[in-house]
Amino acid sequence: MVQIIDTPALARLLAHIGIETFLSELAERIENDYARWPQFEKMPRVPFHSQDGVIELMPIADSEWFSVKLVNGHPANPAKGLQTVTAVGILADVATGYPRLVCEMTVLTALRTAATSAVAARHLANPGATTLAMIGTGAQGEFQALAFKRCLGIRAIRFYDTDVAAMVKFAANLRTASLQLIRCASVAEAIAGADIITTATAVRGARAVLTDSMVGPGVHVNAIGGDCPGKTEIDPRLLSRARIVVEYLAQTRCEGEIQSLGARAPALELWEIIVGCSQGRSGRQQITLFDSVGFALEDYSTLRYVYDKARALGIGHAVPLIPQPRDPKDLFGYIRELAERAAV
Amino acid sequence: MVQIIDTPALARLLAHIGIETFLSELAERIENDYARWPQFEKMPRVPFHSQDGVIELMPIADSEWFSVKLVNGHPANPAKGLQTVTAVGILADVATGYPRLVCEMTVLTALRTAATSAVAARHLANPGATTLAMIGTGAQGEFQALAFKRCLGIRAIRFYDTDVAAMVKFAANLRTASLQLIRCASVAEAIAGADIITTATAVRGARAVLTDSMVGPGVHVNAIGGDCPGKTEIDPRLLSRARIVVEYLAQTRCEGEIQSLGARAPALELWEIIVGCSQGRSGRQQITLFDSVGFALEDYSTLRYVYDKARALGIGHAVPLIPQPRDPKDLFGYIRELAERAAV
Repeated sequence: MVQIIDTPALARLLAHIGIETFLSELAERIENDYARWPQFEKMPRVPFHSQDGVIELMPIADSEWFSVKLVNGHPANPAKGLQTVTAVGILADVATGYPRLVCEMTVLTALRTAATSAVAARHLANPGATTLAMIGTGAQGEFQALAFKRCLGIRAIRFYDTDVAAMVKFAANLRTASLQLIRCASVAEAIAGADIITTATAVRGARAVLTDSMVGPGVHVNAIGGDCPGKTEIDPRLLSRARIVVEYLAQTRCEGEIQSLGARAPALELWEIIVGCSQGRSGRQQITLFDSVGFALEDYSTLRYVYDKARALGIGHAVPLIPQPRDPKDLFGYIRELAERAAV
Repeated sequence: MVQIIDTPALARLLAHIGIETFLSELAERIENDYARWPQFEKMPRVPFHSQDGVIELMPIADSEWFSVKLVNGHPANPAKGLQTVTAVGILADVATGYPRLVCEMTVLTALRTAATSAVAARHLANPGATTLAMIGTGAQGEFQALAFKRCLGIRAIRFYDTDVAAMVKFAANLRTASLQLIRCASVAEAIAGADIITTATAVRGARAVLTDSMVGPGVHVNAIGGDCPGKTEIDPRLLSRARIVVEYLAQTRCEGEIQSLGARAPALELWEIIVGCSQGRSGRQQITLFDSVGFALEDYSTLRYVYDKARALGIGHAVPLIPQPRDPKDLFGYIRELAERAAV
């Protein structure tokens, strides 16, 4: 049997655990998995481009579990009332090859992106950060806010979006979140005095949402909006002033902010900072930048976390997606018998 | 909503359509899709090897549909009462990126492999073939027998397997199939007088199940057992006498029988034969060989066929695997509301 966790099942799981606790436990899982980076078989995601968008496969495995996420990015979807990004994940047992879990990953992708941002910021931001600037308050916004609140102790959020409705939505959703919310009239106003800046805009093409002169010393920039070839949101001059950390160089070189710096841009991988074999921040004045595009490892951690939690809580439903013939060589007899019974 | 077709749902579909009709309609779909080969974005399958086996992704897309199969191969599974191969498939809409179908593909892989064998044999075997030799009567055996009966008019099957129980199972399953079944004591006896030979054994490593001297002129060999690096079942000398047709050269060079011939072995792709831009059989005396490893296109055809049929017959169940927020930017509000309702 394969466990299915659909969106209502995930909602039940979140109701049990609480969204903030979920984000914080997931951040632990992601950090622990990044800490054992060499144990994973990794590859850049596999894209299928079309006129309207991209469909991608994000597979990864260690010696025990294989995971893959199928995810799309279709910028014109919201105009049709559809989401830009949707995703489904599968977890399979490496020892037998059998799939164990088919899981909604649209909401989970938002949760794991926020949890990963928090993991990176814990290692890169100056200690004692209290103010987060959110540039872009779209689908990812509230998840970021809660992850930074819970995992870093952020108390105030200065936010700006070119879409006023997205700002109204953001503020309404976080009304009861015990956060000081400061709506701003520009990017420059939003980042004034912020310890950490998250950029999560939907700009198309190479745009400098964050320009060089805006960002002062000591700030940590969490850049999550530039995530495919040709789509960036950070001024290259700012990049060259910052210590840049990425998830997986082989993938980020093509997709991340560093694509604007060419093939030899210096960048560290997150796992190196986590295990301590490279230094993240060199001092309080350093600008650090997490150039995040999303990596399969985060989906692996998420699927395993959700699978464990859902089984412990009895959430989800078991579906016979895999035949169980008494004799493994008699697949034909098995399916014919099932068909004959179905025909009665 | 995403449609889920599990094994019982597939059994209902097979009960409605009939296994032989299913095989023949599927063969049409596969042939039609091969005929529009240049319209597909193709890649060799993506393997993740482990100590016990391999887990592979088989993606493909045209301008309308994306499909991917997750499939494993674990030779030690039968000793644990598990199947060597299991599979799950997903079909997604290219225009929106939304997944539409999650489908059992263990049984479907056996059906599509047999249907593909029949498509190739229709183009490569001598007309009027009536006798099929089956070397290896494992999980694929009966599907092959019925596909060749239905699509090529095969009336007699000479069969051999090193495992007597597999032969007993094969004969019992086909008792009522209106086929003349001739159980043989060796490979040589089985292929004597056969027009078409299917090799579908589970031999490990490079073994010559079919040696050069065994095969006379005019025979079509349907070689489906050699399907991964280092696993072959045909004598290289026989290969060099035959006109070899493969599914997709970029994949078969590494996985198929032709891996034993080196990188420059002459081989045609099946689609060239189907559209008529290359000649398959040059005359009645020619030996032809379909070096089949299984290609993502066949899974694409299968998933689309099953999706169409299941929808027409109202089979399968719709599962909310994708969130449907009223405002695509308000994923947070959507999932929190679901969670709050679940908590009540």
